Amino acid sequence: GAAPAVVHAQSNLRWRLASSFPKSLDTIFGTAELFAKKVGEMSGGRFQISVHAAGELVPAFGVVDAVQNATVDIAHTAPYYFYGKDPTFCLGCAVPFGLNSRQMSAWMYDGNGLKLMREFYAKYNIVNFPGGNTGAQMGGWFRKEIKSIADIKGLKFRCNPFAGRVLEPFGVVPQSLPGGDIYPALEKGTIDAAEWVGPYDDLKLGFNKVAPNYYYPGWWEGGPQLDFFINNKAWEALTPDYKSMIEAAAAQSHIEMQARYDARNPPALKQLVGSGTKLKPFPADVMTAAFKSAEQIYADLSAKNPSWKKVWEDYAKFRAEQNVWFRFTEATFDRFMQSQKL
Amino acid sequence: GAAPAVVHAQSNLRWRLASSFPKSLDTIFGTAELFAKKVGEMSGGRFQISVHAAGELVPAFGVVDAVQNATVDIAHTAPYYFYGKDPTFCLGCAVPFGLNSRQMSAWMYDGNGLKLMREFYAKYNIVNFPGGNTGAQMGGWFRKEIKSIADIKGLKFRCNPFAGRVLEPFGVVPQSLPGGDIYPALEKGTIDAAEWVGPYDDLKLGFNKVAPNYYYPGWWEGGPQLDFFINNKAWEALTPDYKSMIEAAAAQSHIEMQARYDARNPPALKQLVGSGTKLKPFPADVMTAAFKSAEQIYADLSAKNPSWKKVWEDYAKFRAEQNVWFRFTEATFDRFMQSQKL
Repeated sequence: GAAPAVVHAQSNLRWRLASSFPKSLDTIFGTAELFAKKVGEMSGGRFQISVHAAGELVPAFGVVDAVQNATVDIAHTAPYYFYGKDPTFCLGCAVPFGLNSRQMSAWMYDGNGLKLMREFYAKYNIVNFPGGNTGAQMGGWFRKEIKSIADIKGLKFRCNPFAGRVLEPFGVVPQSLPGGDIYPALEKGTIDAAEWVGPYDDLKLGFNKVAPNYYYPGWWEGGPQLDFFINNKAWEALTPDYKSMIEAAAAQSHIEMQARYDARNPPALKQLVGSGTKLKPFPADVMTAAFKSAEQIYADLSAKNPSWKKVWEDYAKFRAEQNVWFRFTEATFDRFMQSQKL
Repeated sequence: GAAPAVVHAQSNLRWRLASSFPKSLDTIFGTAELFAKKVGEMSGGRFQISVHAAGELVPAFGVVDAVQNATVDIAHTAPYYFYGKDPTFCLGCAVPFGLNSRQMSAWMYDGNGLKLMREFYAKYNIVNFPGGNTGAQMGGWFRKEIKSIADIKGLKFRCNPFAGRVLEPFGVVPQSLPGGDIYPALEKGTIDAAEWVGPYDDLKLGFNKVAPNYYYPGWWEGGPQLDFFINNKAWEALTPDYKSMIEAAAAQSHIEMQARYDARNPPALKQLVGSGTKLKPFPADVMTAAFKSAEQIYADLSAKNPSWKKVWEDYAKFRAEQNVWFRFTEATFDRFMQSQKL
């Protein structure tokens, strides 16, 4: 005969999720909504997660503290926002000249990435799950053309803090501004340049109207991964069925967020170029100088930060192996396709 | 007060899954096992799916018939195996010079791919979910070097049937052989060349011992997607919670299979090269001739197969847009990383 159904101890569980993002970023904020919807559906309505935009419960950058202190059960965030607490957070998201989106997923799901990051996040009472990727971001909007590394001296650049640190030796003055303040600052010339995400999100904020030069690639985030950060006691209190639902809902959110960016960026790029935006690659000497600067920072961090060192050693080895493999069949296929009239 | 828990009508449901793959392909066969494990966990053991290797219940290429006739509830397969029933199946998996892995996921999850393929699969009583991707495959193992398109005349090539059709105008004699029969045929010279998957799977079959030249890219499968094919009546009989679990378990399987290939191919490639395998790109004239031949076949199919035409029009437009976008930030970032000493 059939086995008896397993008893579910946790009827009508409720969690609060704090997102680091505003509702206007439908791709990213929408990923947390998809996650909550999935958990609700799979549990037959028994496990409800309410999703709160940045600032509703805690500020955008307060989500790690909130999960650590169990103010909220779960957060959806970009771990590199917590560079100031420890740069090791960035290895679970993106570091300059790091892994691309597929490589990051490979490191997480089949390499040592998830295991190593969980060891690190345990200090913050966090159990994490990958929760989306934007793909390689753009390098940002520049009022003036950058012809060589000399042109970035004195440049006030609103950027990712790790990118700012890499560029400081060359005279960049990194700026920190919330998304909503970038447009007026760029319009007035209070800042010279700003990077945000990519065509789909950037078009909404209208940066093309106040800065004509759109540079690529965003080498400081070649495949930034978002995460769900769960308070460890909230996690441990879950029954196995709920744990498995969380894992699967996060995985579905992970793949769907990348799909949304990949599907929506091309029409946005077309619209930007149609309205006069000039697409430009960073000059070779900027790329090379930044790469060397980044590698020096990684060596320095490894010498003084044991958490960084432990994760970085595995990450760097994986990065080297991945780039050898990807340059054969993947890159050759893509390059051929990109050079055809389709 | 708390809402009452939803009543689950379907306790102790059992499904049988027919895989098109042998147990020895741990990455692919293991993806169906992961899927079944997830559904079992999430349902608290109430929904059990038994996973059967190719040949156990039905032959590898009998799984569409088996799902269509409800002999099994679900299959895990590569839809392009059913090229002979209708080439439209291939658009849900891979066609020569088609979408890469990320682009295929984008088309499925955020483009029109899933909707269009479901319309087509409905004729076979199938409801499908993406269920893995290998990434761009290798072009295969060749006993002799291919220096130009002239060298493929008369070549007995064990390959994907769509690739065979593309290459027939240039004198290739396509061969059809099960995986286990390739090694002896290649060793004896009964065939001149064979393609299978990529380093991780190919190394297991030992092709490097009998053919020294390993070509790339496998332009006939730049991002082949596997699918779960579910009998439509079995699907419709599910309660909403079970439906949602199936969708999430498939999504997790989808991302994890790609991660396994990406993480495991690099060490296998290293081992192959260390044992004497020569990695070679297909000559430019082979790529160009094959591309033109493929595009002509797509035009011919569009003229006479309305199912193909409807899906192809959307697929081709998406392919064009994706390749414009990917050549900027993604390709430039990857190319830079691949050219560094890491």
